[in-house]
Amino acid sequence: MSVVEAKLAALGHTLPEVAAPIAAYVPAVRTGNLVFTSGQLPTVGGTLVATGKLGASVDVETAKAAAQQCALNGLAAIRALIGDLDRIVRVVKVVGFVAVDPSFTNHAAVVNGASELLAACFGDAGAHARSSVGMASLPLDAPVEVELVVEVRD
Amino acid sequence: MSVVEAKLAALGHTLPEVAAPIAAYVPAVRTGNLVFTSGQLPTVGGTLVATGKLGASVDVETAKAAAQQCALNGLAAIRALIGDLDRIVRVVKVVGFVAVDPSFTNHAAVVNGASELLAACFGDAGAHARSSVGMASLPLDAPVEVELVVEVRD
Amino acid sequence: MSVVEAKLAALGHTLPEVAAPIAAYVPAVRTGNLVFTSGQLPTVGGTLVATGKLGASVDVETAKAAAQQCALNGLAAIRALIGDLDRIVRVVKVVGFVAVDPSFTNHAAVVNGASELLAACFGDAGAHARSSVGMASLPLDAPVEVELVVEVRD
Repeated sequence: MSVVEAKLAALGHTLPEVAAPIAAYVPAVRTGNLVFTSGQLPTVGGTLVATGKLGASVDVETAKAAAQQCALNGLAAIRALIGDLDRIVRVVKVVGFVAVDPSFTNHAAVVNGASELLAACFGDAGAHARSSVGMASLPLDAPVEVELVVEVRD
Repeated sequence: MSVVEAKLAALGHTLPEVAAPIAAYVPAVRTGNLVFTSGQLPTVGGTLVATGKLGASVDVETAKAAAQQCALNGLAAIRALIGDLDRIVRVVKVVGFVAVDPSFTNHAAVVNGASELLAACFGDAGAHARSSVGMASLPLDAPVEVELVVEVRD
Repeated sequence: MSVVEAKLAALGHTLPEVAAPIAAYVPAVRTGNLVFTSGQLPTVGGTLVATGKLGASVDVETAKAAAQQCALNGLAAIRALIGDLDRIVRVVKVVGFVAVDPSFTNHAAVVNGASELLAACFGDAGAHARSSVGMASLPLDAPVEVELVVEVRD
């Protein structure tokens, strides 16, 4: 087991299997030493762990846990592509898309669910640049969607 | 004619000319082997092919066709920069911004208009990472905006 | 003083100090020759220069000035990471997230506040790919958030 997956296991997390893509896109693509993931929804076994919008039917703690699940799914997509998460040199960029009622302003607290997981897994190498933004809606009524860019070694 | 443009022609598409930029930004920039495009609106000859929001005045089929036009405009921007679309090694990333009423949840079907065109043009090399998200509004009331990242060879 | 900072000074701008990050992310990350910044809010001394949404309580001129401040903060984040803005070879990509009432359609005019500053600082090397999009809300009720990707030399 890789060091990163051992840390995830110690935190009580397991990486999901990556479902076969059902569309003309894939979960992650490598170019040079960078891997770009698709926007990850907070699914477990194909089912969203929450639906709805922040500032309306979803509270921050629920959405923060969902953002963590998005990050886990992103790591699973990267593992499926490169084989071993220990080959991640650095988490470069995280974009957290949060579905919101227009009155909501605490996006950062939601996206911290992803960022804190990455910090716990990767330490200093997990410290990433990040954008957190509020969406009018997300696919399947998801409350949050997260995409990752990471640098990998051969 | 490049192989990719021949495929586009066989599908009934022609790449538009790229209008001179009217602002302090450009249609596409190369850095190393990556080309980042600007967010592309679904224009033909400078006019939007549709306006409005999904879940309101625009239906999915109309917006899917608009997303295809965005992708065509993105390819045109790349061609204008690198000269020949056959120098695209891989489509790396697509972000599909969909203007929505907050009740809309079928973003994927809209952005498939871009993804399916890229698959038809580039085959396996067209399989990209993708994020699809719902916006409160887009420039000029466009229903969709698409940006591309591609890897190119010299 | 670097050439770029001299140009900023001639325009009446000074780069802010970068506040220590308070979360599990950082203001900017370098990977290879690229630097990705976090989404920058229009703060001065930790306080937003404006709040609210376009098409509602914030007008275009105010938000354009806020977008310029976002760009300044992004440059400050890059300087803190690489030491000297003259090591920027090219501004590659700008994403301008504009908080909007759904009726708003003039996103480009807002994000020009960032683009025009970059053009004034970097000349041809400041001409970037750009996406401008409308958000349901942004963190802390900011009217605009801007992220940058730049290419740097050693």
